[in-house]
Amino acid sequence: MSPKPMARPGGRSARVQASVHAAVRELEAERGRAALTVPLIAARAGVTPSTVYRRWGDLQELLSDVAVERLRPEADPDDHGDLRADLTAWAEHFLEEMSSTPGRAYLRDALLGTPESGNASRCSDYAADQVDLILGRAAERGEEPLPGREAVMDHVVAPLLYRILFRTEGLSPEYARGLADAVLKDAGR
Amino acid sequence: MSPKPMARPGGRSARVQASVHAAVRELEAERGRAALTVPLIAARAGVTPSTVYRRWGDLQELLSDVAVERLRPEADPDDHGDLRADLTAWAEHFLEEMSSTPGRAYLRDALLGTPESGNASRCSDYAADQVDLILGRAAERGEEPLPGREAVMDHVVAPLLYRILFRTEGLSPEYARGLADAVLKDAGR
Repeated sequence: MSPKPMARPGGRSARVQASVHAAVRELEAERGRAALTVPLIAARAGVTPSTVYRRWGDLQELLSDVAVERLRPEADPDDHGDLRADLTAWAEHFLEEMSSTPGRAYLRDALLGTPESGNASRCSDYAADQVDLILGRAAERGEEPLPGREAVMDHVVAPLLYRILFRTEGLSPEYARGLADAVLKDAGR
Repeated sequence: MSPKPMARPGGRSARVQASVHAAVRELEAERGRAALTVPLIAARAGVTPSTVYRRWGDLQELLSDVAVERLRPEADPDDHGDLRADLTAWAEHFLEEMSSTPGRAYLRDALLGTPESGNASRCSDYAADQVDLILGRAAERGEEPLPGREAVMDHVVAPLLYRILFRTEGLSPEYARGLADAVLKDAGR
């Protein structure tokens, strides 16, 4: 897994993070979420419990950090050569990933971190980075006018996540495509 | 506090719910969230722990239920005699309530309930009911055209909650008003 942005790749901090994250994933798969404890995770990761407490504070904060890493996109959005195709495909894919059973569980865990941890905002940054890539490609192709990134966040990403978390009726690929089409229409396309 | 929709008002089920909810609120105020346990809450409420486990399953589910009750609006939206004024004032008020420190804590707790508990969807229903009231008044006044309720949910409520939970930069009363104005403009006003 990728280290936290703060951790120097290859440094001790990054190695501790990688082994503790791996221990959480393994133990969760083997024994289930309810069996996880800091001493158990530390033993599997080969570190002391105090290393875990010092870095993460408590189990909830650690699980939140692991969840955010799992929400990190594995690849850039597909390039279909056209903004509408890129944005609608990305919105459908985002809905599919985030509304899956593990996706929902990671979203909830990500929200359990303290506001200071910045875990929830890292999730949002991942989506914003993907939207930036899609809009950047469209700009390079000379597709104008373009919606702003924050307009896509407010009117495509936000309704998808709001409904996944709070209001699940009517969620469908068509709904995701409709949101993408509407933000393009608002931008004058 | 109001009973769950399922509980017959005045029945034993409603009395148990009211006393357990009150015990959670009192104990949380007195000792803090981290000190709460099911036996402690049950003792304060004058019920057995097994009554709590039978009805709520576990502490997390109980705290989620209490949080949702606290998110229940205390009054109908103000009536300013005009849709734009009603919707912008409501959006500002909603942002203020939900982005407060207790508001954020209740939102997170509400999301901790199992999907089957329907706690998160009750939060969304509270907002939808308030939007329905505002749009219903506008319809009675003959204000046309009107945005649909789901359009207001997607383009006013969703961005506010998404940013409160995931992306807090730039949240302001002006931002809330801007969302309300935009959904009215999209509806042709």
